[in-house]
Formats: sequence, structure tokens, C-alpha cells
Amino acid sequence: MKVAIKKNILREEDRIGALNRETLRAHGVTAFNLIGSPGSGKTSLIEMAYRELAGKAAMGVIEGDLASDKDTVRLKSLGMEALQINTGRGCHLSPLMVRDALSGIPLDAIDILIIENVGNLVCPVSFDLGEDAKIGLVSVAEGDDKPTKYPLLFLEAEVVILNKIDLIPHTDFNRDSFYLGLRAINPTIPVIETSCRTGEGVVKWVEWLMKNSINRGEF
Amino acid sequence: MKVAIKKNILREEDRIGALNRETLRAHGVTAFNLIGSPGSGKTSLIEMAYRELAGKAAMGVIEGDLASDKDTVRLKSLGMEALQINTGRGCHLSPLMVRDALSGIPLDAIDILIIENVGNLVCPVSFDLGEDAKIGLVSVAEGDDKPTKYPLLFLEAEVVILNKIDLIPHTDFNRDSFYLGLRAINPTIPVIETSCRTGEGVVKWVEWLMKNSINRGEF
Repeated sequence: MKVAIKKNILREEDRIGALNRETLRAHGVTAFNLIGSPGSGKTSLIEMAYRELAGKAAMGVIEGDLASDKDTVRLKSLGMEALQINTGRGCHLSPLMVRDALSGIPLDAIDILIIENVGNLVCPVSFDLGEDAKIGLVSVAEGDDKPTKYPLLFLEAEVVILNKIDLIPHTDFNRDSFYLGLRAINPTIPVIETSCRTGEGVVKWVEWLMKNSINRGEF
Repeated sequence: MKVAIKKNILREEDRIGALNRETLRAHGVTAFNLIGSPGSGKTSLIEMAYRELAGKAAMGVIEGDLASDKDTVRLKSLGMEALQINTGRGCHLSPLMVRDALSGIPLDAIDILIIENVGNLVCPVSFDLGEDAKIGLVSVAEGDDKPTKYPLLFLEAEVVILNKIDLIPHTDFNRDSFYLGLRAINPTIPVIETSCRTGEGVVKWVEWLMKNSINRGEF
């Protein structure tokens, strides 16, 4: 009984995820589900992309956090379409939460929607929110063994962002170990190294977003 | 129906957690449930505590990870009693996983058991594994806003370890903002600042472990 109920819930979740995708498609919006640990730099990366995309494509954001609207206030102050979801005790965004949020965003006014998930390398990976691709984010401060210890995300994502590379000289992070561990899990996934402090790699990350948009960057 | 089943599962989990506590108590072992983000420095802190406790108290470890036994191999190489649990897709350790693990650890040979949970600021907080206290760990690399965004852990923990303070000069971490956010959630929780690279604060963290042991550090 327990299993049957769980299966039904999952099937229902998938149905809503698919519905979200349809809605987004109808408005010409490409959605990316950004997944990383707490403090890996999700909001900073979004901020950098927004500035870089100015005049090329319009970006909107759904922000997932247990509590507070700090990030949304920060992004809105830049002029971004941003909407906060507070999950309370919830460890991930659900397709239904995103469904509700979509009605609060002027979809015709944006080209790219970044869904910033709750900071967590595990739970968010299992849910299809209706995104076109999952983006896996990891900061060098987390150590070089994350692909080995948390393989799910690195299997499901379409790209890995290795962030805070400016901190490498101040940590024990070993690039070779990182790539070795990652390649053992996912031999072909592209990796973009970034630093929001120096700006390194941000252009590459934005180019990836553009190239992987449904209109191939032709806005 | 769904709710009733969920309640029953939770009640069962709590019962097993209580059973774990009884078992640990019977062997004179104090257990700490160490909760922090991926890469916040959980294993390094355990390693430092083990060295510092040498000759004073014997420490054992249960290691929770989705995959790999990297950390357990690392800790065992130091001579520690360490046992790995791989949770697969599971985002936290459960009381039953710990129950099974306890039978694999020579409890009479240890005084302090650290249960290193899966790297996650959300899910592990809701489960009583049978520990005497939860320890909340956060690294400065995660930013100063974690208490505000992930309040659950900072409400439930008995102490907060603020780790990687050697990185403060290389990040935007603001100590005042951190303490302001934390105090708004939990006005009285003690904070120990540590760096596993410089060794700063490690003695204080070990003193806390000793003082909060069931025999008040008299091993």
C-alpha cells in the first residue's frame, strides 16, 4: 500500500513537471534547474549571468529556500523578474511549487528561466520541474570528492559548473582528483570553471545557457 | 491514509532512535550527530578531534554517504573505529541504518561516537538517530546567510561549529551578519570557530565534546 501510494504521487509529480514544460514552451522560455550545495554560489552565478545577458536575452528566476527572501530581494534590486518559493521543511522544489510560481512570472517577457533549487546535492535531483536541463554546481571549497560521494547529480546534469576557482590556492582542492572522480561517474559531461569574484568563466557559462536554449541563443 | 501511514513510519523511526540511545547508554557511549553541507569539513573535524582526544577518550565514527567509502578508509588508516553506511539515493541517515551499524562497532572500546550524517542542511535534522546532541556545522565558504536560509538545523543543534575561518580573508563572509542571522534564529546556542588547516579552535571543539559527554569528560 505504502509503495503504491508513493508511486502514484511520483506519477502525479511527473505529470505536473510535463505540464510546466508545455507552459514554458508555449511562451518560448527555456528553463534550467540549478542544483548545488548551500553556499556553492547559485545566486551569485545567476547575478553574473543576468548582467552578461543584458541586451541579448531576458532572464527570470524562481528562488527556492526553506526560509527568507534575501536572494529574491537581491535579484529584484537588479531589475530581474524574480519570485521566491519558501519550502519550510522541504528539501527540494516540487513540480507543483514551480507550477504555482509560473503564474506569477510574466513568461512572455523572459527568454531564460533559472530555477534555483534548495541548496542540496541529493533530493532536488529526483524531481523533473519541467526544466530543459539540470545544471550541477559545486564549489572548490566543498572539496574535490563531491562527484564520488554524491554521484546522482553528476549523472543527471547536462553540465557541471565548478565555482569559486579563485579559492583553489587557499584549499586542498586537487583538480586532477576532481576530474578523475567526475569522469568515473560521467565521462562526457562538460565542465565550466567559474569564479564570481574574478569573473573568470562567466562568459562561458552564459554561452552555454544561450547555446542550450530552445532557440539556440537567437532571441 | 497517506498522512496516517507517514505518522506511523515516523513513530517507528522514533522508537528505533530511542532504542539506539538505550544501547549506547548501556555501553557508556555518548553519541553526536554531526550535520553540515557537503564539503563543510565534517570528516576533517572528526580527524582533528580524534588526534586531540588521543589518550583522553576513545572515539568511533559512523560515516554516512550516498556512495563511496573514502572517508571511512581515511579514518581507519588513523586507527579509528569507523564504519561506512552508503545510503544510495537517501538524503539522510535513518535510525534503522544506525541501529544496524551499531552492531558492527565495538561499543565497549569507545567513549564517544560521532555519527557523520549525509552532507545536507535539511533532511538529517528531522531524525533522532539516538544521539545525545546534534552538532550543526557550517563553513565560511558557504556564506554568512546560512542560519537565515536553513533555520531548522540552527534551531535543533546544541552547538554550531563555524569552520574554515582561515578562508574569511578570501571570501565575502561577514562575521557580524552571520552572528546577527544566527542570533535571530537561536539567541543562546554556543558557537565554536574552527580551521582544520591552522588547527585554530580544535581544542575548544574537543573540550565541548568532552564536557557534553554523559560522564562529563571523566573517562
